[in-house]
Amino acid sequence: MTSEFALIARYFARPAPSGMLGPGDDCALLSVPDGHELAVATDMLLEGRHFLPDIDPADLAYKALAVNLSDLAAMGAQPLGCLLALGLEMVDPDWLQRFSDSLHALAGESGCPLLGGDTTRSLQGRVICVTVLGQVPRGRALRRDAAHPGDDIWITGVLGAPDIALRMLQGRLARDEAVLAATRPLLERPEPPLAFAPQLCGLAHAALDISDGLLQDLGHILKASACGAVLRYPHLPEHPALATLEPALRRQAVLAGGDVYQLCFTAPAAHRERLAGLAGDAGVRLSRVGHIVAEPGLTVLDADDRPMTLSARGFDHFP
Amino acid sequence: MTSEFALIARYFARPAPSGMLGPGDDCALLSVPDGHELAVATDMLLEGRHFLPDIDPADLAYKALAVNLSDLAAMGAQPLGCLLALGLEMVDPDWLQRFSDSLHALAGESGCPLLGGDTTRSLQGRVICVTVLGQVPRGRALRRDAAHPGDDIWITGVLGAPDIALRMLQGRLARDEAVLAATRPLLERPEPPLAFAPQLCGLAHAALDISDGLLQDLGHILKASACGAVLRYPHLPEHPALATLEPALRRQAVLAGGDVYQLCFTAPAAHRERLAGLAGDAGVRLSRVGHIVAEPGLTVLDADDRPMTLSARGFDHFP
Repeated sequence: MTSEFALIARYFARPAPSGMLGPGDDCALLSVPDGHELAVATDMLLEGRHFLPDIDPADLAYKALAVNLSDLAAMGAQPLGCLLALGLEMVDPDWLQRFSDSLHALAGESGCPLLGGDTTRSLQGRVICVTVLGQVPRGRALRRDAAHPGDDIWITGVLGAPDIALRMLQGRLARDEAVLAATRPLLERPEPPLAFAPQLCGLAHAALDISDGLLQDLGHILKASACGAVLRYPHLPEHPALATLEPALRRQAVLAGGDVYQLCFTAPAAHRERLAGLAGDAGVRLSRVGHIVAEPGLTVLDADDRPMTLSARGFDHFP
Repeated sequence: MTSEFALIARYFARPAPSGMLGPGDDCALLSVPDGHELAVATDMLLEGRHFLPDIDPADLAYKALAVNLSDLAAMGAQPLGCLLALGLEMVDPDWLQRFSDSLHALAGESGCPLLGGDTTRSLQGRVICVTVLGQVPRGRALRRDAAHPGDDIWITGVLGAPDIALRMLQGRLARDEAVLAATRPLLERPEPPLAFAPQLCGLAHAALDISDGLLQDLGHILKASACGAVLRYPHLPEHPALATLEPALRRQAVLAGGDVYQLCFTAPAAHRERLAGLAGDAGVRLSRVGHIVAEPGLTVLDADDRPMTLSARGFDHFP
């Protein structure tokens, strides 16, 4: 018999860092340093919707936390800790061991210890809800409504790989083992630029993470900031494994492919060198892909500076 | 067509209080005053497990937030704000209107505005995960491990009503309409002592909320504090509607009935008058029901000071 309390003690409770109170009480306790704000986000993953029953539990735990860490990065926040609410149909020790080991591993690497949560029995598949807490210098968070006309638009990492991998895994695209092998890790183990992001505070204006597709996500910045943007398609950092695919599919994956968990941010042109230097030091690929304009609307220019015709604008959970 | 973003805008986004950033960005932002710690808790409710499909959405939203507010109260923390992660099979405008109106109503009353969250489509029933954030003076939180031998044991509110209501609603106990009418509101609309609880900081030692049953929950304090307790059964505040039920059932409901969401706390005898005064001012019923002893173990004494024989010790999610 494994009780809820034994389950928490065995798989999830770890000593909390000094000055914090971790799992086992009514609430977790932590401090936000003076002069900082708390940044907090939550994300729910449902079996059958966001993952399949046979997913590797290590990949599942990794992604459940990584997508939340990506939200912190998108505000320029440093992780403080996380909470896990977990609904399970049954207690499977092997599954829980792999899940919790992976969660603690990423939590440790990212300075985001598991401080509390909730476990409960589910009647209908696994349910995972992670909440992350981070700190950001007061007034310096990278909000969506802070883009200015004239700002450069920057992207970390590369685009398109998770979308292609997902299409192949779901049978919506003919499986090419070489392409899948190259793109799948970016779908299953996204690596948001956690160490680089807080360094953007004070340099960048607006930022967000690319989760639903570049066009749709950049659209949120434009709407919140009441401005427009011009992107240069040839400057967009396409994953190299997409080179053998047909052009329309590549464009779709680059412009509208989700699950990227890299940053799109805007910054004054005066900070170009500084940003490139910081990215180089952090080992983050950084691409300048366009600029913000006063006139609303989003234009993507091709290699001949002609506007491209855009179709699908990304992914929505309630189409 | 209702997109995820339209759904959030229509039902959940409200202007955030001054100094906070609410829904619509990657994270919510809020400040914890200098000299305070952040208290944070999360709780998951699953359809079929914690509520039935036909539950009044207003009751569901109320309870989803109230049980989390109860966790804040149990630390002596004042609410700062909350997040909602919501999985829905479909977009039902009437349901969402009633749910969100009720959530905002309790959030407003309790000073716990909805600051962010996540919405997603569920394939298997509704999923609700609320995270609450609160503040507590640094080092003053009411932890489970802080009980001292000699402390009084106190309980707010009354015991037993939610358990009896649930038994009748689930058909495990013959339905008595008068008893059900009197007990059901405490099951569906628990009222944790939110304004009173923060006043306990500096007076009380250990505290928690009674969610799984008094014996089991008090057991957590005893284990964490490495001590024991003596309860006086006649001093336990039984809900008056239980008076007509048979004695064994009443005892079971009072000692092991869950869903109470009132506080059990320990405090030095020197604070008796002060505590009674504060409770009176706050309109909170407060009962002194026993005391902490050095020797481990939990004894319940009957009206003749004889130890009672105890059986079921509450509720566990993975029996």
